[in-house]
Amino acid sequence: MDSKCISQAVISRLPRYYRYLLELKEEGYERISSNELSKRMQVTASQIRQDLNNFGGFGQQGYGYNVQYLYEEIRKILGLDREHNMIIVGAGNLGQALANYVEFEKKGLMTKGIFDVNPRLVGNTVRGIEIRMIDELEAFIKKENIEIAALTVPKSKAEEMAGLLVKYGIKGIWNFANIDLHTIGDVEVENVHLSESLMKLSYRVNNRD
Amino acid sequence: MDSKCISQAVISRLPRYYRYLLELKEEGYERISSNELSKRMQVTASQIRQDLNNFGGFGQQGYGYNVQYLYEEIRKILGLDREHNMIIVGAGNLGQALANYVEFEKKGLMTKGIFDVNPRLVGNTVRGIEIRMIDELEAFIKKENIEIAALTVPKSKAEEMAGLLVKYGIKGIWNFANIDLHTIGDVEVENVHLSESLMKLSYRVNNRD
Repeated sequence: MDSKCISQAVISRLPRYYRYLLELKEEGYERISSNELSKRMQVTASQIRQDLNNFGGFGQQGYGYNVQYLYEEIRKILGLDREHNMIIVGAGNLGQALANYVEFEKKGLMTKGIFDVNPRLVGNTVRGIEIRMIDELEAFIKKENIEIAALTVPKSKAEEMAGLLVKYGIKGIWNFANIDLHTIGDVEVENVHLSESLMKLSYRVNNRD
Repeated sequence: MDSKCISQAVISRLPRYYRYLLELKEEGYERISSNELSKRMQVTASQIRQDLNNFGGFGQQGYGYNVQYLYEEIRKILGLDREHNMIIVGAGNLGQALANYVEFEKKGLMTKGIFDVNPRLVGNTVRGIEIRMIDELEAFIKKENIEIAALTVPKSKAEEMAGLLVKYGIKGIWNFANIDLHTIGDVEVENVHLSESLMKLSYRVNNRD
């Protein structure tokens, strides 16, 4: 199976399949038909079949999908079968909120450190994770083999900080600053633009009948 | 202009146009060509022309777009030309992080109250916004004309709380709980599924060359 051939649209739906399969597993399901899964996920059964056919042979006529098997395959495709080390850059409320999420660790996404520029925060911890100063960033990323950085600094600092992260070898930036990181070099960027999400909701609330 | 006819894909890009136009305005631009805007936004000029043509006649050949006018029009379409009142349900780190964002208010999205079930938090404030108990929710929503609720409660409480919010007249739920709110009735839901966003990044980091 070559995951490179899978379309971005399918990839972007995989985490949701992953979430439902995990729920099914936890509820004790061994198998599920595409119709049942369709009902749960409120996606058409044909969409589910099409999406999952990308990975070949997971479903069997008259049997449905093996929950454990499909869960494991999607987990592998998403790269969650091995741990990824993460840091949080910016120890404000949002950074601390992310540090407090235990869900990420259950998925193998391990928060190893939190960084900030405010010297008053040195040595504080969030859920046992120490807050460090930016001057330790480079050494820490290398020593702890950090791949992903959540960027929760103010907009005005985001581009500069992202540049440092890339320079120090970070492979993926999870960007919460309300800015597009265009010019920072070779790195994967996933944006969570909260203001834009809220504006979309405002649009829909405003255009209800 | 009938904003009902605009495709969801275009709508979902509007907040980003809005952000860039606001920046241009702040930098003192009066007009901008689609080519310049294209360079800044890293979107093709033809995509920009197509998107903005949906709203009719904003651009003029040889002149470009009037920044102030386009900004105002997109603002109106997004419903940001009037204030929307919002509450935050769940006063944990994430709820507090949202309460601390002043950006939302600049866009007319006003956080009026924060709600929680933990009686120890009663009377505490975040940036001057009082934390209240859930039993005040109904009266508060009605009295303060609250349209939008940010839902930052744990997954296990999300469905029940969303049901209450709809019952009490909320029109839009900004859902941060890692669950799809299917069965809660007539309300607009915008999801911010942080785990899924992080998993997409993990996939991309894992599939780099």
